[in-house]
Formats: sequence, C-alpha cells, structure tokens
Amino acid sequence: MKVEPRTLPGFMELLPNEQILFEQMKQKIEKTYQKFGFLPLDTPVLELSEILLAKAGGETEKQIYRFQKGDTDISMRFDLTVPLAKYVAKNYGNLSFPFRRYQIGKVYRGERAQKGRFREFYQCDIDIIGDEELDIINDAEIPSVIYNLIKEIGFNDFTICINNRRILNGLFENINQKENSVEIMRIIDKLEKIGQEAVIEELEKLQIGSKEINQIMSFIQIDGGTDEKIKKLEELNIQNEAFKTGVEELKEVVKYIRIFGVPDTHFKVDLTIARGLDYYTGTVYETFLNDYREIGSVCSGGRYENLAEYYTDKKLPGVGISIGLTRLFYKLNEMNLIETKKRSMADILIIPMLEDLSKPIELANALRQNGINTEIYLNNKKAKAKFKYADKLKIPYVIAIGEDEISSNKLNVKNMETGEETAVGFDVKEIINYIKK
Amino acid sequence: MKVEPRTLPGFMELLPNEQILFEQMKQKIEKTYQKFGFLPLDTPVLELSEILLAKAGGETEKQIYRFQKGDTDISMRFDLTVPLAKYVAKNYGNLSFPFRRYQIGKVYRGERAQKGRFREFYQCDIDIIGDEELDIINDAEIPSVIYNLIKEIGFNDFTICINNRRILNGLFENINQKENSVEIMRIIDKLEKIGQEAVIEELEKLQIGSKEINQIMSFIQIDGGTDEKIKKLEELNIQNEAFKTGVEELKEVVKYIRIFGVPDTHFKVDLTIARGLDYYTGTVYETFLNDYREIGSVCSGGRYENLAEYYTDKKLPGVGISIGLTRLFYKLNEMNLIETKKRSMADILIIPMLEDLSKPIELANALRQNGINTEIYLNNKKAKAKFKYADKLKIPYVIAIGEDEISSNKLNVKNMETGEETAVGFDVKEIINYIKK
Repeated sequence: MKVEPRTLPGFMELLPNEQILFEQMKQKIEKTYQKFGFLPLDTPVLELSEILLAKAGGETEKQIYRFQKGDTDISMRFDLTVPLAKYVAKNYGNLSFPFRRYQIGKVYRGERAQKGRFREFYQCDIDIIGDEELDIINDAEIPSVIYNLIKEIGFNDFTICINNRRILNGLFENINQKENSVEIMRIIDKLEKIGQEAVIEELEKLQIGSKEINQIMSFIQIDGGTDEKIKKLEELNIQNEAFKTGVEELKEVVKYIRIFGVPDTHFKVDLTIARGLDYYTGTVYETFLNDYREIGSVCSGGRYENLAEYYTDKKLPGVGISIGLTRLFYKLNEMNLIETKKRSMADILIIPMLEDLSKPIELANALRQNGINTEIYLNNKKAKAKFKYADKLKIPYVIAIGEDEISSNKLNVKNMETGEETAVGFDVKEIINYIKK
Repeated sequence: MKVEPRTLPGFMELLPNEQILFEQMKQKIEKTYQKFGFLPLDTPVLELSEILLAKAGGETEKQIYRFQKGDTDISMRFDLTVPLAKYVAKNYGNLSFPFRRYQIGKVYRGERAQKGRFREFYQCDIDIIGDEELDIINDAEIPSVIYNLIKEIGFNDFTICINNRRILNGLFENINQKENSVEIMRIIDKLEKIGQEAVIEELEKLQIGSKEINQIMSFIQIDGGTDEKIKKLEELNIQNEAFKTGVEELKEVVKYIRIFGVPDTHFKVDLTIARGLDYYTGTVYETFLNDYREIGSVCSGGRYENLAEYYTDKKLPGVGISIGLTRLFYKLNEMNLIETKKRSMADILIIPMLEDLSKPIELANALRQNGINTEIYLNNKKAKAKFKYADKLKIPYVIAIGEDEISSNKLNVKNMETGEETAVGFDVKEIINYIKK
C-alpha cells in the first residue's frame, strides 16, 4: 500500500523553474537589506509559548501552531517581530545600538485555507532598534530601502504611502474621542476598501457625534501634493501636543526621504493609512504597485515606541518594515509579472556523445573552476533524450561533445534561446568569452 | 511582570558577528551546489504525519515534533530526504530526470539536549534522482562536489572516504551471514570508535563463528593505496554476484573521481565505512577533516536503490549527500577554525558630525548605487559614542563628515583594521577606488 504523496493545504511548494524565480526575488531583497548595512539574524522557528504569546491574543492566538513536547509548551513563530523582541531583550548587553537587523524566514499561521492565503510563508523584515531613543531620521531611511528594493525586484510604478499615527491620535484626542482612537483608525484604514459612506456608518455605530465625524472625514480627505497636505495640516491649527509632534515628525521624515533619494513620484503622504495594528505609534508605511493595487500593500511597517516591553524594562523604540514574500510571489507569478529568462542554475550543459567521458568531464571541471555553473549529462541515453533534457531544463548554452569534436579540437556552443550554434576551440577561455558576450 | 527572554535549549541563536560567519558558510555551500547545476528546492517544514512517518520508526519516530491541528495530524520534518521523496513522487510528471536538486533548510529532532546537539538544525543536501536507472558515474561526481565544497569553506586537509555496500553485503552473503548483514555493518561502522577487540566481541554476540569473524576482520583490514585495495578485493576471488558488482562499481567510481579532478590525496577507499542507515545500497561516502577527526564526518551520503517506494511504484534510484551545517558550524566556531575578517554587512560606515545630514546621506546614496554596502549613523550622539559604535560593528572603513570636510571638499577614509587614515576627494569614484585597492 502506497501513501498518496501530497502537501498540506496552504503550504507553498514550487516546481524548479518557479523556485528559481522565488530564490531570485528573495536574494534581491536580501541584497538590498545588506546594501543598507543591516545585519543578518536567524532565530528559531520554535519558541516557548510563554515567550511568543506574552502579548498575543484574539485572532493571532487562535491561528498559532502550538503543542506540547514532553513538559514544554511550544509554539511556532507567527511573525519575526516577537522573536526579535525576545532576542534584543535577551542579548541587550551584547548588541550595538542602533541595532539594525534583517531577517528572512518562514512564519506560521493556521489560517483557514483559501487561494492565495498561506499557512507557512516567508517574511522579510528589517528593523532599526534604538536604546532608549531613536532619531526620527531613521524613519526616513526606511522608505529609501523600500524604494531600492521594489526597483530591484523589477517594478518602477509604485507609491510608498506615509502617515504618522500621532497626527491621528492627536486629532481624536482633540475631539474627545481618545478612547475610541484604535477603533476609529481601524475603520479609517478601510476607507479605500469600503468607501466613504460605509466608514461614516461605522463611525456612527461608535456613537460619535456628527460634528466629530465631519471633522474626522474632512481631515482624512485633506488633498493636494505632499507639501500642500502638510501645510493644510498645520493650518488646521489644532492645539494638541500629539498632533503637533506628529506633523513635525511627518515634515522631518518627508524632508529626509527626499535627501535619501526617493523621488516625489514614488512617495506620498496618505492620511488614511493607520495600519491595522495598535502596535505602531508614529510613522507608518504602506507600499502599492500602482497598476496592481488589488494585491494590497506589498511592504508595510512603521515606528513603535517600545519593542520588548514584555521582556525587559529597557525602553527600545524601533522602526521597521515587513514583506510577505510568499503571498507577493504567488500574486506576481499568477499575474505573470516576474518572468525572467533565467530558469536554470547552470549556465552551460555539457552533453557527452561518446563512450569515454574524460574530455567532457575535464571541460566541466575547468568551466567550474572559472566560475561558470556547469552541468554535465551523465546518463547513457539516446541523443534524443539528452537534448530533450537540455530543452526542458532551459540551460542557456549546450555543448555536445563527440569523437568529432575531440579529434578536430573544435566545439559548437549552442545558444538554446536563439538556436544559434557557434564554433569555438576546445578551450575554456574561448567558451567563457563567447558566453559572456 | 516581565517574561524572562530565553530561547529553547537545543536551538542555536547567534550574535550578529557569528551569524555573519554562519551565513557566509551557508552561502559557500549553496554556491558550490549551484556551480554543479543543482536546482533549488524548498519544501514545507510541516507535512502530514502519514507522509513523513510512512517509513520512519524506532528512534526517529520518538524524536519527531508531532501535533494535532484541527483534524490534521502534522509533523515537523526531521530530514530533507523524506520530503524530497514525497516531492518527486508527487511531481514526477513535471520533473526532468536525472533530477538534480539542492535544498538547504532547517529540520527538527527533539533529541535529548546536550552540548553540541541541536533540535533545530540546517541540513544542506544534494541528490541526483534517476528515472528507473541512474548511471554509476553520478556516484563519482558527488565526491567532486564535496571536494570543491570543503575547499570553498576553507579547509585543505581532508579525506573523502568511499566504500560500496554491495561489497559488504556480498561478503556476508558469501559467509552465510546475510540475515545479519545490517547488524554486522552497524558494528563494523564503529571500528574506529570502539577498536578491533570490541568489534570482535560484538560480532561474537551475534553467534557468528570464529572462522567467519576472521574473514570479516581480515576483509575490513585490507590496506594499501586505493588501487592496491581494489586489487586485493579482486584477488579475494569471492564468487558472489553482489560482491563482484560492488567491486566493479567501486573501481568505476574511483576511475571517474580522478577524472572529476579529486586528487588521490583527498579521497580513499575505506572498507569499514558502511553508514549507519540501511537506506544505502551501493556507494557510500564520509568526509573527515584530518586534523579534527573528532568532529566526525562533516559530509556523508551514498547511493540508494529507490527513493520514494512508500509513495509511488516508479523506481527512483538516487545518490546524494548531506551536511549537518548547524553542528559543523558550532564545532568549527568553538575550535576557532572559521575566523574571518568580515564581521559586518556594511563596507563603509558614514558618521555625520554636523547638523545638516544632507551631504552625508547623499554620499551614502551614491555609494549604495555603486554597489557598496553602506551604513550611515543616524543618531544624534556624542562623537565618542559614534566611534565606539564603529569599533564594535567592525565595519572595515569609516568616513566621518563634518563642516571641515564639506568646506574643504576632502574626506578621510579610515581603515578600521590598520587605523590608517587616507585623504580622498569628496567623490564616490575616488572612495571606491581606494577601498577596492
């Protein structure tokens, strides 16, 4: 009796050519993070439930893969932020601050399975953690990372949307709706999805007076360019500390975003963005591919007051972003937006067409020594099967070596994309020169 | 009340400078696998228990992290081979054979925690899977991968030990100990660890006659160089099919290992190597760092008859190796064998010493655009704190920028290793030329 080979629903498992695309995207993200000097971090997938769930609750807690092993109550991580908090609290004395780390790893959420939703998915995070304090200017470097990153993965038409939660909190305080602020922000956040009327309806359900609702609505509909919006915010002349600090911060962030090289075409102030979580306290980010808004934000994050309050008395403010790579890849791949030519790890496939494999193997050795990824076909099959393999693997160049090639000391390098064959000497340097051309 | 921040025992979690070393080693392994044209694969950490445990039993099964989520009986993978078997059986029609894949990923075994033993660890595997058949020559390419890989991670003095299980099986068959062969191989495998006498004792416990024990002992003590050993094996003149096939295969593998460029100084035939598992059927490999034999084999594997027999009727023979990266890294790091100079992701740290950060940020932008990993210190601290940060992070070059630098249009690039400061123009090209030198 055989067990039917199958993969759990909600777990992505790719065929090789898609896996290559995925790896390329992952690597581009990693390279960009490294370009900004972020340090790598790798924390365990498993943690004590007591650690992981110190804060969690509600929906998050229900989704967690949690189990008992021996006497130990263990959970699988559901994001990379809680493990970071534990890590920084635990290693506080051994880290240099600001601590800038990136982490790319799988996280787990036992959500209801549906198309495009994953239970195991990669998050690609960066965070900058300060010791007691962290200058607002760090909030302006993050969009510069996003800008470089989205360009690197091949998109040009995108917008980084920026807001500051202090502005919203200050506004709500000013209209005596402080206790409702988390709830109001949750509703505002849905503006684009559900529309203006539904937002008003939901606000009414909170027993907010119509005057206050009007103030909220006119606030979130402030329009114009980036500087215009900031000017209008200042002109509201709201005498509230949080509000004023928020506007000042936003102004500073905008100023430095430009210095960090993000053009005005690629970012904007969006006062409706609040991020669902009550975790963020200042700057917040979302990033949209303008032609594919339906994908949702491809890169989000923000500033938080205190990373690790559940584990330490040290105040550790930070700012960071996260990319849900698995879902992003799935969406882009589904829409055929990330085709590349490279569908193979090897640059050259050598196909021996003779009994004695010495010469073909020696050529493979030499190519590898010169940094060329080289595969050699080692099975004793008919020529047709060998070339079919070459076709399917999409290795860019193929060199078949038979007795003729050895006696004439000449090779044909076949460009598999164009079908073109080019004669070169039986010589590594010549082959490399040709394919590098 | 704070929760004490701590990590589960048996789970490796590194500080940034060690993490950088770890990432470098992982990347070198990956690059080597890619150089031989192996395709990337990434399978889920979680699988149906029914799938993962189709074969397992005994010790393995006890160690597994297994739990129920809803109605689903789930296990965490304990190696990368079983998921590969599932994958190949599941995607048989969509793969090209021989299917050559690498996978680097975490696996989980709830072993008793002890120093140097990990419950979560990286395995770095390659396998070549044939459809119905796979030429023996593939068994000779694998040591060439090992050779390149160990060199790449920085060791020169190592030995790849090779044997063929058919030879052992044939021998046992020939002395009527076929039913004991797995058990005998398990004992032989311990020769080096427990010594000759203990091996004999253990064999006696199996009720093997002294004549047969003598034959086993004189067999596994065949000595001499590689070709000498093969010659002595042939001269034993054992009239057993398995034995003869095994010797033939070994001879072929040795012949091609040399053609694949592995020098005789770096491999040998070792007739005592059997690999603990009954999984392997032909060629087997172990690899030892000669000066650090106590680490054990750093890279092991072999040939198997049928990868996925629990999931499919297709016969899928293969050959592969695995590196237990986490343990290997732990051991090498503990012995201070993998020091490198690179302890930071950034090549340059820019330290602004003035109010207006525009010029320092613009320089950072330009360096990054030119492919130089650059960090800029963005907190408003005293000069001393800024330079302390630079020291601790071990970023190779530091450029401090104050009013003087801007007005004079000159910079000092400080080499943090030598302490030497060099004056260059306020110019990206000049800086890059200097640090690349």
